[in-house]
Formats: sequence, structure tokens, C-alpha cells
Amino acid sequence: MRTGLSLLLIALLLSTAFVAKPTRVVFFGDSITQAGVNPGGYIDRLRKMMPTDQFELIGAGIGGNKIYDLFLRMDNDVIAQKPDVVVVWVGVNDVWHKSSFGTGTDPDKFVKFYDAVIDKLQAAGAKVMLCTPAAIGEKTDFSNQQDGDLNQYSQLIRDLAKRRNLQVIDLRKAFLEYNLKNNPDNKEKGILTTDRVHLNEAGNQLVAEQMQKALTGK
Amino acid sequence: MRTGLSLLLIALLLSTAFVAKPTRVVFFGDSITQAGVNPGGYIDRLRKMMPTDQFELIGAGIGGNKIYDLFLRMDNDVIAQKPDVVVVWVGVNDVWHKSSFGTGTDPDKFVKFYDAVIDKLQAAGAKVMLCTPAAIGEKTDFSNQQDGDLNQYSQLIRDLAKRRNLQVIDLRKAFLEYNLKNNPDNKEKGILTTDRVHLNEAGNQLVAEQMQKALTGK
Amino acid sequence: MRTGLSLLLIALLLSTAFVAKPTRVVFFGDSITQAGVNPGGYIDRLRKMMPTDQFELIGAGIGGNKIYDLFLRMDNDVIAQKPDVVVVWVGVNDVWHKSSFGTGTDPDKFVKFYDAVIDKLQAAGAKVMLCTPAAIGEKTDFSNQQDGDLNQYSQLIRDLAKRRNLQVIDLRKAFLEYNLKNNPDNKEKGILTTDRVHLNEAGNQLVAEQMQKALTGK
Amino acid sequence: MRTGLSLLLIALLLSTAFVAKPTRVVFFGDSITQAGVNPGGYIDRLRKMMPTDQFELIGAGIGGNKIYDLFLRMDNDVIAQKPDVVVVWVGVNDVWHKSSFGTGTDPDKFVKFYDAVIDKLQAAGAKVMLCTPAAIGEKTDFSNQQDGDLNQYSQLIRDLAKRRNLQVIDLRKAFLEYNLKNNPDNKEKGILTTDRVHLNEAGNQLVAEQMQKALTGK
Repeated sequence: MRTGLSLLLIALLLSTAFVAKPTRVVFFGDSITQAGVNPGGYIDRLRKMMPTDQFELIGAGIGGNKIYDLFLRMDNDVIAQKPDVVVVWVGVNDVWHKSSFGTGTDPDKFVKFYDAVIDKLQAAGAKVMLCTPAAIGEKTDFSNQQDGDLNQYSQLIRDLAKRRNLQVIDLRKAFLEYNLKNNPDNKEKGILTTDRVHLNEAGNQLVAEQMQKALTGK
Repeated sequence: MRTGLSLLLIALLLSTAFVAKPTRVVFFGDSITQAGVNPGGYIDRLRKMMPTDQFELIGAGIGGNKIYDLFLRMDNDVIAQKPDVVVVWVGVNDVWHKSSFGTGTDPDKFVKFYDAVIDKLQAAGAKVMLCTPAAIGEKTDFSNQQDGDLNQYSQLIRDLAKRRNLQVIDLRKAFLEYNLKNNPDNKEKGILTTDRVHLNEAGNQLVAEQMQKALTGK
Repeated sequence: MRTGLSLLLIALLLSTAFVAKPTRVVFFGDSITQAGVNPGGYIDRLRKMMPTDQFELIGAGIGGNKIYDLFLRMDNDVIAQKPDVVVVWVGVNDVWHKSSFGTGTDPDKFVKFYDAVIDKLQAAGAKVMLCTPAAIGEKTDFSNQQDGDLNQYSQLIRDLAKRRNLQVIDLRKAFLEYNLKNNPDNKEKGILTTDRVHLNEAGNQLVAEQMQKALTGK
Repeated sequence: MRTGLSLLLIALLLSTAFVAKPTRVVFFGDSITQAGVNPGGYIDRLRKMMPTDQFELIGAGIGGNKIYDLFLRMDNDVIAQKPDVVVVWVGVNDVWHKSSFGTGTDPDKFVKFYDAVIDKLQAAGAKVMLCTPAAIGEKTDFSNQQDGDLNQYSQLIRDLAKRRNLQVIDLRKAFLEYNLKNNPDNKEKGILTTDRVHLNEAGNQLVAEQMQKALTGK
């Protein structure tokens, strides 16, 4: 009897293990995430850092995207993938395009569309994680032109996460702390970015580590 | 027998008349349309100009709206009303907010969201009519600051209407023609607008007439 | 003999005292300085705080002015007054008008025109003192939209002062320190400003105190 | 006696003719004028089109210059050259930099600085000729983004020329007329410009011809 039961248990456990699908994570964002799937990119690094039988990592980044662009394309690019988790990382273009093209996003509409994105993802059964926009310039004395706005939009995201009880990956905070230690000359790029915005090797590594910590809860 | 048949016919005709629902038209737009339902506004005027048993006119304008704001709120504010016809009139803020807040809409994204709005309206069974943005300033020598962009976005809408075989109400053209006749001093406001953008009495009347012509095909 | 000499000395000293003209200080700036001469304004307060026989205080502020506007009007408005000291306080509009009108000032040209203003003032024999732009918004976590730029332009002014060996009145630093103590709710206005930029009573008092300290060296 | 006197007169006249200096013309402007001295540039072409004993042509263009940059550097770069004629050609950056950097020039200040530039040039004894900004985009239906502003600033220059009784070289008008004939496909560049703003061969030739006509009065 005991042997029979044990065998049954083992069989059940094995079958569970065999059918257990890995958690499907979609990284949903802009050009930074678009580059994240390239060799050395943060998603590429994550794939090597996390057990592939437990996590399936999918990039869904498109250059120039703002929050409302995510909303427009989310059915096709994200929800159709039936993700378990969606990591939303957006905001740089919402701020940056104000001064470069006159086509940024107002703060109140940023929140409105972000809420709508979260609503739809949650309705599709996905767990949602939010990221703050990391940097437009790496100077540590808040003298990068867009620092005021980036701080504002980051806080909007933190408030949103708190209000909706979501996990936030505070990349802006992580980038600043890293730069305070590693950017003694107050350079505007070259520490974690190649061009003030897009990630160099150290930047991709830092983001991958932050993402891993959030995804695995460690 | 003949009397009986006649009575039946009359009864049938009456019943048809009684159940025939008027065409439900939703005007979908920004602050200009929001003010259109006020006494003297263009929707208010249309209600008096068109037979109420044939047309039910509903305003769905919200101040500051750009094309992507329409996309965000269209399920609740338009499709839920089960409209037969939707008249979309948007574009002024997509252009204007570039210089006043740095939050206008890029031309390629303007078309992308406009296509998505039309897709959804058509999927809901509504006939869609498009309007060009009338004016930001009434000077007739194309020296209003946003004239270049307004002409560009108007052409994008005309091209869109052509490509999708939709009717376009060319308010920009109508406003220019009216001003060429009635604005000899090349004033920037006061002919059809109170403030270069929002409609005065003559403006509301002109828009109502243009809308009536388009809706009734006369 | 000694009595005669002493009397002579006293007479000389007295005559010197009598003919000694007060130091003429011109405050050269934008709308904040234009309002500074109003009752309760910072220049009005300074006039009560400093001995009138030693200091003659003149306001030369015009609303909307940027550094290049100061350069354009300095001959008539400042140099013609033969000032002993000129306190230059500018920068808010150079930053602010970027997003509100698209007509701010590039950082490199800000420095170029500032250098030209200083050159001309020094050539006219005036001692020049520089101020940093205090605030566009009083939130203390650097999340006011223009904080990045204001920090950048303030640093440009500090660097300029250092390079040219000039005294700098660091109002931006003073405002931040005051707000860190007195703005626990992280409000954007109402602590030192009425509207995020222009001074309320406390703001005028703080500026007056900072100016007094700089002008009297105490 | 009379023969001797006549000969003397002739000798004097001849000597005067021999020492007669050519008219010194300075072209004062932005990157378009900076490139104008290059081989094939409009100033280079003018040098071949006009008699060198009668006209000395000097380029004084610097990339990115707006009207206030001209004012800042005019003593060194123009007045020091003791020009007989100064052709001022500016305005593209005053308009363009609004949307690309947020650092354009307000229309009222454009006129203010232009007046100041003219005042100084006239005080230095130079004849001043004004040009309208030719183009930011060559589409002929006024649908280039900055057409509204360019038309506005061109009119400001025409009004300024009229008010001060100065000659205006209306390059904007000349460019539009040329494009109406030679740009049937409504292209945004490639007819007179390489990139919507800077001159190609045809553009340099057209400008040279317009300048020649204005300078020689033919």
C-alpha cells in the first residue's frame, strides 16, 4: 500500500513537473527594450541568468514608443502572447519628445493611459510590473535638462504602483545610486548609457539584475 | 375587401413610421464640439435645422482632446451609444499643443490613431465621416503660426478619407473660403472664431451648414 | 599744533562724509525684479534695510526678459545710470519659455550673452554680481518640470562667476534650503512664491536678506 | 591755359577713377550664408557675376545664427569691415529652433533686434538690404510645418523694410514662385534645397541672381 501510494505521488509530481509551463514574461517598452533582445542586451542577459524551464522571456519594445503607443498596440503585441507577467518600461520618450519634437505626453494623460494599459493587462490575467524611466543624461546633480520631468513622471509611476498595489522596479533610483558611486566626474553619458539614454554593457547588466531581483523575488 | 386592404396598408405604414428610429449621429471631438451642444452651438443649430424624427444628434466633445484621447475613450463615449453615424472632428490640439505644451501629436502617429479610431467605429457598424481642423488663426495669407501644420494634418485627413473611401467635411477649406470673402483686413480672429480657434455665432452657423450638407447629402 | 591738525582731519573727514555719494546699485532682471520695486517687493524691503546715505537702490526689471534682452537694453536702462554695482538676476525665462513658447535660450548662447553683458558692465566701471534663477516650482525633490534645466543654468552662472572672479548670490540654493525646511508637503507654490515663480512676502524677504548680505559683505 | 586746366582735370578724374574703391558688400547671416562662400555657393557665384573692380563681396555667415546672434557679433564681424552695403539674411533659425530645440525667437523680439541691427549698421554708414527667409521645406501648398511662421516673419521683414524705407530681397517669394513652376510633385526638398533649408546648385544660382538684381538695381 505504502509503495503504491508513494509511486502514485511520484507519478503525480513528475507529471506536474512535465506539464509545468515556464512563466511567460513580456517586456513591453520602447527602443531600450527593443535593443534588450540583442546579444548583450538586458533581456538576452536575463535569459542566461534565469532558469529557462521556469521563465520564458519575450521582448516587445519598439523605438519611439510612448505610453499611448503601448496602449494602441498592446492587443497584438502583448495580450495575444498570453503573458503571465508583463514588465512595462516606458516614459523616456513621453518626456524627451517634448523638447525635441513638441510631441511629448502631458502628465495627466500619461497616468490615464498607463491606467488603461494596466486595466487591459490585468483583464487578460497578466501580473503587471512597472518600471521608472532610468535616465536622459547621467549627471548626478539633477542638472540633466529633463531631470525635473523624469523625476515627476517616475513619481507618477511610483504613485500608480502604490495605488494599484503593483510591484515597481525603480530603475531611475538604481541608475542614480550607481552613478553616485561610479560617476565622480559628473559625466552625462558613458557610465550606464552610450548616449545619455540607451544602455551600454554596464547599463544592460544593471537592468538585468534589477529585473531578475523583481521577477524572482530575491 | 378593398377597404380592409387599405386599412391594413395604413396600419403597416403607421407601424413602420412608429418604429422607424431616427439616424443617431455622434459628434466626436474636442472643446469645439464640447461647446457645440451649448445654445447657439453648431450641434444646437443642427438640431433646429434637421428633422428630429429623422436625426438624433449627440455631442461627444471633450476639451483638449487629441486623436489618441478619442481612441482611449471611444468605447464608453461613442460606441456604447450605438451610433449610426460618427462625425470625427479633431486635430487642432494635435497641432497646437506642440508649441504651447510640447505635447502635440507626430503626423505619422496622428494617422495611425486615426486609422484605429475608424477601424473600431466601422467594426461597431457606424458610418464614419471625417472633418479637417478649421483654424488656429483666421489670417488668409497663411501667416498664422500653425498654418503649415494645419494644412499638413488636413491633407493627412483628406488622404485618409480617400484611402478608406470616407466622406470628408472640409471645414478648413470652408473657413478659408469664408475668410477670403469676409476678412479683408486679414484679422486673426473675430470672423468665425472668438479667439482664433473656438467658434463665434457665424462660425457655429457655417459649421452647422457644412455638417447638414454632409449628413443629408444635399 | 596737534589740536589744529586734529581739527583739520575732522573737517576733512566730515567733508568727505558729506560729499560721499551713496553706492548706486542697479538690479537688472526680469518680471521678478520689475515687481521688486513695488511696496513689499525685495528692492522696497532692501531700501528699508540698508542705510539710504550709503546705498541708492534702482530697479531695472522688465517682464519676460531673457539674457539677450538684458544685453539689448543695457545701455539705456543700466549703463546710462552710471551704477557702481549691478546685480544681474536672470534665467527663469531663458528656461521656461522653451516649453511655453518654444523661445527659450540655448545654454551656450546663455553663457555667451551673459559674458557680453558682464564685459559691458565692467567696461563701464561697474562691479557685477550674479544671481542664480531661484525657482520654477518649489517642490524639493527636483520633480518640478524645469528643475533639470534650472540646475544646469544655475551651474553655468556659478561657473561663470568663478571664471570671472565675481560674487554670486545663489538664490536657487537659498530657495531650496528654505523649502527643505518649510515645505514639508512638497507643494509646488505658496512657500516663497505665489505662482511657482513670482515672489510672495516670504520670498521677497528672503531675497532681500540674501541681497543685503551680498551687498554689505555681512 | 584752358588746355592745361582741362588736362589737369582729366588727370584728376582719372586718378580718382583709378583709386575708386569697389563697393564693399557684407552678406550677414546664418549657415546658408556661411556656405555661400564655398565653391558654387551664392556669394562665390556672385563674385563671378559682378565686376570685381566695382564690388567686393564678403561673407559673414555663422551656422545656427538668429537675429540676436547677429546683433551680438555685428561689431566685430561686420562693422569692423567698414561695409558700404550690408545684406542681412536671417530668420530660418528664429522659426525652426522653436520646434527642434525650444529656442526660437518671439516675433516681437525678432523685430526689436532687427531694428537694433539696422540702427547700428546705419549709424556706421552702411546701406542695409533685408532678405526674407526662403524656405523650411519646398512644398508649394503651404503644408510645410513652419510655413505659417515663415510667412509671418517674412511679412514682419517686409513691414520693417517698408517702415524704414529699405530695399527687401524677397527670397521667400522667389522660392515659392520657382517651386510653383518647377516642383509639380510637391516635394519637400531637392528643387532649390538639399535638405529643405540649405541651398543646392539651383538654389544658390537663384539667390545669386536675386542678390545681383538688388545690388545692381537691374
